[in-house]
Amino acid sequence: MAQISIGSTLHYEVREPTLFLFKIAAAVTPHQSISNEVLTFEPSLDVEQCQVGEDGNRMHRAIVQPCNLTVRYAALADMSPEIERTGEVAEADLANVPAEVLTYMNPSRYCESDLLARFAFEEFGHLERGYLRVQAITDWVFEHLDYVPGSTSATTTATEVLLKREGVCRDYAHLAISLCRGVGIPARYVSGYAVDLTPPDFHGFMEAYLDGQWYLFDPTRLASTSGLVRIGLGRDAADVAFATLTGSAMLLDKQVWASNSKSTQNPNKTPAVSIA
Amino acid sequence: MAQISIGSTLHYEVREPTLFLFKIAAAVTPHQSISNEVLTFEPSLDVEQCQVGEDGNRMHRAIVQPCNLTVRYAALADMSPEIERTGEVAEADLANVPAEVLTYMNPSRYCESDLLARFAFEEFGHLERGYLRVQAITDWVFEHLDYVPGSTSATTTATEVLLKREGVCRDYAHLAISLCRGVGIPARYVSGYAVDLTPPDFHGFMEAYLDGQWYLFDPTRLASTSGLVRIGLGRDAADVAFATLTGSAMLLDKQVWASNSKSTQNPNKTPAVSIA
Amino acid sequence: MAQISIGSTLHYEVREPTLFLFKIAAAVTPHQSISNEVLTFEPSLDVEQCQVGEDGNRMHRAIVQPCNLTVRYAALADMSPEIERTGEVAEADLANVPAEVLTYMNPSRYCESDLLARFAFEEFGHLERGYLRVQAITDWVFEHLDYVPGSTSATTTATEVLLKREGVCRDYAHLAISLCRGVGIPARYVSGYAVDLTPPDFHGFMEAYLDGQWYLFDPTRLASTSGLVRIGLGRDAADVAFATLTGSAMLLDKQVWASNSKSTQNPNKTPAVSIA
Amino acid sequence: MAQISIGSTLHYEVREPTLFLFKIAAAVTPHQSISNEVLTFEPSLDVEQCQVGEDGNRMHRAIVQPCNLTVRYAALADMSPEIERTGEVAEADLANVPAEVLTYMNPSRYCESDLLARFAFEEFGHLERGYLRVQAITDWVFEHLDYVPGSTSATTTATEVLLKREGVCRDYAHLAISLCRGVGIPARYVSGYAVDLTPPDFHGFMEAYLDGQWYLFDPTRLASTSGLVRIGLGRDAADVAFATLTGSAMLLDKQVWASNSKSTQNPNKTPAVSIA
Repeated sequence: MAQISIGSTLHYEVREPTLFLFKIAAAVTPHQSISNEVLTFEPSLDVEQCQVGEDGNRMHRAIVQPCNLTVRYAALADMSPEIERTGEVAEADLANVPAEVLTYMNPSRYCESDLLARFAFEEFGHLERGYLRVQAITDWVFEHLDYVPGSTSATTTATEVLLKREGVCRDYAHLAISLCRGVGIPARYVSGYAVDLTPPDFHGFMEAYLDGQWYLFDPTRLASTSGLVRIGLGRDAADVAFATLTGSAMLLDKQVWASNSKSTQNPNKTPAVSIA
Repeated sequence: MAQISIGSTLHYEVREPTLFLFKIAAAVTPHQSISNEVLTFEPSLDVEQCQVGEDGNRMHRAIVQPCNLTVRYAALADMSPEIERTGEVAEADLANVPAEVLTYMNPSRYCESDLLARFAFEEFGHLERGYLRVQAITDWVFEHLDYVPGSTSATTTATEVLLKREGVCRDYAHLAISLCRGVGIPARYVSGYAVDLTPPDFHGFMEAYLDGQWYLFDPTRLASTSGLVRIGLGRDAADVAFATLTGSAMLLDKQVWASNSKSTQNPNKTPAVSIA
Repeated sequence: MAQISIGSTLHYEVREPTLFLFKIAAAVTPHQSISNEVLTFEPSLDVEQCQVGEDGNRMHRAIVQPCNLTVRYAALADMSPEIERTGEVAEADLANVPAEVLTYMNPSRYCESDLLARFAFEEFGHLERGYLRVQAITDWVFEHLDYVPGSTSATTTATEVLLKREGVCRDYAHLAISLCRGVGIPARYVSGYAVDLTPPDFHGFMEAYLDGQWYLFDPTRLASTSGLVRIGLGRDAADVAFATLTGSAMLLDKQVWASNSKSTQNPNKTPAVSIA
Repeated sequence: MAQISIGSTLHYEVREPTLFLFKIAAAVTPHQSISNEVLTFEPSLDVEQCQVGEDGNRMHRAIVQPCNLTVRYAALADMSPEIERTGEVAEADLANVPAEVLTYMNPSRYCESDLLARFAFEEFGHLERGYLRVQAITDWVFEHLDYVPGSTSATTTATEVLLKREGVCRDYAHLAISLCRGVGIPARYVSGYAVDLTPPDFHGFMEAYLDGQWYLFDPTRLASTSGLVRIGLGRDAADVAFATLTGSAMLLDKQVWASNSKSTQNPNKTPAVSIA
């Protein structure tokens, strides 16, 4: 079992009364337990914690008056991923997957799998169905994109990324998710903390639904899947922005970190199963 | 209370083993009770009924071998909408709405509210907040679009519709939903049956979340809100296609109907509240 | 030398005074001489013939009052294409090509070569430079697209076609043109008549600028290059629509034909050089 | 007559043999005479000057070996614009305009007038036809967009700008051009130098074809039309990039300036007619 120390600090200049929705707290799941959690707001605020959906997503909501706001989050995440021989994992049969999973077959704002289905089918339709097909998709994404900070914007979609061939973590994930859905594999977006990410920031990666459960992939290869701590799940990045504002505030500074604080078991094995 | 007789018949030529997901059965909700329901498949099939999410959406799933498939659905829907003086309904405060509702603020595949926020704000940002603002948005959509069957496709999005200024019911709904989200009003897509729709077909309309509940709108004005029977809810049409196929089958014929079978009360009042 | 008999008949219901720009008359070029040309309008009209640009494009312009308009065009085109051993043709050096040719390196409305440059470079950048590289591009387009009448619209662009993988002749040409420009080869759109096209219609194809001149390609393979008669040249289909209307008129019927009327020489050789 | 002193200096790090196409020299036209022109390259190079098209566009082409390249351009532009009572200028009749002008009715890469025609018609179709209608269009663009450096990219188009409502000079021009074409007014893009532009840079503006000639407009209002010196004309910015490179080079620095060197006549009158 690995323990990961995570945290983030956000500084805002709030210019008028502004509603903040923060998605920065790690999810609590069967494979990810959270302890020593601290979330502070300075100046102090009434903050409501909400559970969004059934997947452990947490959101903190607050109305903030004009001020210089500092948000500090820190926690320890104890990870107990299942370890599997992933090469042998088959794809799920859509005739049997839970109805909720089918939602992740639908195209979404930044993952236009309807537009990319034909491309996905031509590139990956002939591959043997299973974990290795998703691996082939994420490999393709890794090999065909350049990681270029600043090359894309908050409204860039998977089809644009496919043509531009560059982007950042969210773009890699969006394209891989779209291609998975395009060949009939449910896929979803995960935001989180990543150990030793360079430069440090919130990270975006993905999960694909295979034989009975969700499996974790990071098409950027910027982090080991054993170093990923989940914040939120969604159809794409639209669902899990670390902060959504209604009002007027400017982000002055953002610090994010994640590091292994202990790792007492299976240090060499890479967990493949969802941390959901 | 009104009773509406609804139904649909679908004929497919199934060419290879194909997975069908049907979303044609009316939802069961506090305001919509369903009786005399019949769903038959010919040839007969093992069909699984699923509940998707918490909103009453139903889905029927079946694997169909090559054949000529006929699906017949019929039911009576007893509608008991609340009647309100809608002109006085205020908008919800996003600081207080349930977390699930906030999901319907996010941009989705066919409702790019992120791209349309600026436009929405300039056109509708200055209006008094409340039911009448949503009415102004749906009026604007009605007045600026032409209803032209065949003018759009299954992948047409709200931004395209805003420029083309034409479309069908789903396009009207997508644009109105996007504009609502753009000014800070949660909005979602509803598929359903509509009394006396011409030409008869499945219908698409929308709901906006106002003071504590969802309110129903049909930007096409093709049907009275009192004649709408809900099948499914979603972020946009991507979530509630009447049939999703994996395999190969051709839709040969589709018949859809809805008519008032009795109406014993409040015949002149238009229900405004969600039938969720 | 081959002689091709070409023609077209257009019927319009003109509902209000309407300005028509017709581009249906074959171009007169060093390799294409036109005889027995007849262009009639019924009812009779004042029609102005314009020469557009320096490439032989002709346009007929008329203001038409409300009526049932019939336009008939017929001509004989004597084709004297140069025959070359195309496999040995090199690409032009952009440092030396005439400045006018460089215009056809720019992205245009339906050929977003700026967006497709990266894709083009990855797919075709490593190929040996020359006629065979353009051949490889048009082969790729032929092999990856399905010819599906009605699958695209008048506003469909090359990037959409690349994703959809279907279209008609103009879409094939737009994609091939974009990919050529993307790897540094000037390319332009040609509208024309095509011998024995099925179904009969105006045709769209392309030319690429190679070693000192323009070479003809038809990515659809629907017609032999020896059966192509040029009407107009442009950056893409936006420049050579067979009819552009300002006013209100409905096209009721369109008939287009082209057939070999004699062929006395080189019947088995395929001309490759531009008919410009 | 006004005399404007113009110039620009470009520094490149050239990393491999690179073909440069520069469009930085002012055009020579009946209304714009150029004197004291100096164009130097350091290290010295063989540079070819080309005339592109018939409108006075000039291009300088050179192959540059790896080096640190400095390009210096300076000239005096003597402007003799016609002065007109623009409020009385009518629109041209498309039935009579020269065929070359009709080219500027076609949609182009960054000016999708086909997609924007409906919007243009609804907003500006009812206005009286004439100079003042173009003025209304450029006013609308000025009032609805925010000038935000960095908000758009080299591939941003008019439809995106219409939705985003922000951009830089080229975006303002692209949107105004598209809206003009959309209501039937030929319009084209102009690149140039602008007196006292802040921050100093190459500028992009537009011309509309009205009663018999081209009229100049700057939708950004960043410069007086009397302070505009034309470099090049095109369908949109794709045609007149100040530098187009094939190879590998990085722009290290760019300086652009324009200032009135004398102004002896009509100091208070704004020229409205094209400087073509």
